[in-house]
Amino acid sequence: MTFYSSIEAFAAALADLREPSADAAADARVRQGELTKPAGSLGRLEDLAIFFAGWQGKARPRIDRARAAVFAGNHGVTVHGVSAFPPSVTAQMVANFANGGAAINALSAAAGLELTVVALDLDRPTADFTVAAAMSETECLDALGHGAAVVAADLDLIVLGEMGIGNSTAAAALCARSFGGAVAGWAGPGTGVDGQGVARKIAVIDRALAFHAAAPRTAFETLRRVGGREIAAIAGAILRARQLGIPVLLDGFICTSAIAPLAAENPAIVDHCIAGHCSAEPGHKRLLAALGLDPLLSLGMRLGEGSGAAVAAGIVRSALAAHDRMATFAEAEVSASL
Amino acid sequence: MTFYSSIEAFAAALADLREPSADAAADARVRQGELTKPAGSLGRLEDLAIFFAGWQGKARPRIDRARAAVFAGNHGVTVHGVSAFPPSVTAQMVANFANGGAAINALSAAAGLELTVVALDLDRPTADFTVAAAMSETECLDALGHGAAVVAADLDLIVLGEMGIGNSTAAAALCARSFGGAVAGWAGPGTGVDGQGVARKIAVIDRALAFHAAAPRTAFETLRRVGGREIAAIAGAILRARQLGIPVLLDGFICTSAIAPLAAENPAIVDHCIAGHCSAEPGHKRLLAALGLDPLLSLGMRLGEGSGAAVAAGIVRSALAAHDRMATFAEAEVSASL
Repeated sequence: MTFYSSIEAFAAALADLREPSADAAADARVRQGELTKPAGSLGRLEDLAIFFAGWQGKARPRIDRARAAVFAGNHGVTVHGVSAFPPSVTAQMVANFANGGAAINALSAAAGLELTVVALDLDRPTADFTVAAAMSETECLDALGHGAAVVAADLDLIVLGEMGIGNSTAAAALCARSFGGAVAGWAGPGTGVDGQGVARKIAVIDRALAFHAAAPRTAFETLRRVGGREIAAIAGAILRARQLGIPVLLDGFICTSAIAPLAAENPAIVDHCIAGHCSAEPGHKRLLAALGLDPLLSLGMRLGEGSGAAVAAGIVRSALAAHDRMATFAEAEVSASL
Repeated sequence: MTFYSSIEAFAAALADLREPSADAAADARVRQGELTKPAGSLGRLEDLAIFFAGWQGKARPRIDRARAAVFAGNHGVTVHGVSAFPPSVTAQMVANFANGGAAINALSAAAGLELTVVALDLDRPTADFTVAAAMSETECLDALGHGAAVVAADLDLIVLGEMGIGNSTAAAALCARSFGGAVAGWAGPGTGVDGQGVARKIAVIDRALAFHAAAPRTAFETLRRVGGREIAAIAGAILRARQLGIPVLLDGFICTSAIAPLAAENPAIVDHCIAGHCSAEPGHKRLLAALGLDPLLSLGMRLGEGSGAAVAAGIVRSALAAHDRMATFAEAEVSASL
């Protein structure tokens, strides 16, 4: 099944974004005011319940089926020594996911999430984007489609994550090309390179941006030129979830970078997305600010794999449980105020 | 069963605090370095696993049995119009807890916590502490004992919470008497009083502090003079949990205020405690800073009942799940670094 059969189809989907149900959100807001607690006292848990009500189109939203989808890809840009780990680790970690031994296995189980891992042509890294587009048009459309394909229509929530040695360099390039600003503000230590490594990343990204400077500034061209397969897949999943009205929990810097080119083309794309956490990777805070997203958690995590978003899924579950199960003042015969 | 048979027994327990196992914590730290992720990349999830290892005395700590304990009490100081709700709401909310309709019912179920609610003499409010000690010595010892009694020895975690119309005034008085500073920095809107209400709270607390100024500054005297039964019960539970080596998840401003007089007497009392969240009640941030506690969540919650701590319990579960279930680099045959 092909979700984005052409560049034009992708651009058209991004241009025409579904809206949440204002009626369901309003009903949920009324209900929050009737539950046995001071008005507003559940803070962001109330906001989350109203947000889910809007997107699910019902005043009492539920999470019966939720999926964590982790996409993996390899990057030609690793030839420049931008990561603390060798590219072979991407496939090793995909095997670790399959064997249940990675953080996302434990964290998705703890949060009651199905886990789907999609490895995208690991033996065929993207091109070195300092001298070519990372992906051909066909390759990028294919990656977008693989992302869209994991968004089953009956999901109540999708948690997105990634694995790909070298992909924090692609993520920083995507942010810089989408939002501008000095590359040094977007590039960071990733999995743990030192100051010299960060300097190498910055130089690599500067060269890449110069190489692609004359290319169109569309979401598609930015994704395919300086992104990666797993990042394009996340972008495809985000857009497909929007078409289906399914809320998205974004993970860290690299996962969130997938939405940067989309938001540069249509800022409303973030409206069905929740920032699960703010990563320790320095560019993430800046990226979340550029997108207008306020993260649920800030625990110094910087692993990727969807790990921070999976932890945040527990907060979403708590929010919907309180919204659905609490009694109203009238039901409980509690005095509403003096 | 009486846990604190005398003021001297309570003071002796507070003076002689158990330490965590340094060996188990060190073993957990080594394990974190061997798991299939960049070192440190799980951030505070790693710290939590190591913390629990120390207190549980094992390198791979578990949460098999966890309890949320909510204590309720009534306050004589409500005669001064310090709350937006009438005192009758305390008993109404206890009935709501019993019927399963409150936020803590939904949130403790979502986090896999047993819920225990202890209503402490609701028909006998504490004395108005602007003109008398809130509790007699016997009443305060009794409240401390009720708190200690809920800490079953086989718990792996205890989450503490409270309900008591008027108790944010007692909490602010406890903080001011324990740590000093202007009362205006500790008193806030509570369940939702307006600016005039906050001014009334400040004036009431100022009068109370002046009335009790000459009394001893011990933890016990501060708790019994300007605290409340449910707050003293939380203090008793915190101390008892320490004697048993059981980690405590603290909730918001009022719950955390219970530890203020204890910490003023022995700062090490916070060592087995985790701040579940930072409440929207303004004094909480200041109190957490005075205690040296860094909250896991900051979601604008200000409900009490243990609600914020119950949400944070999910993060603790995630942390221990990752620590326990992840594979090591050797087990997964993943390359550790370049």
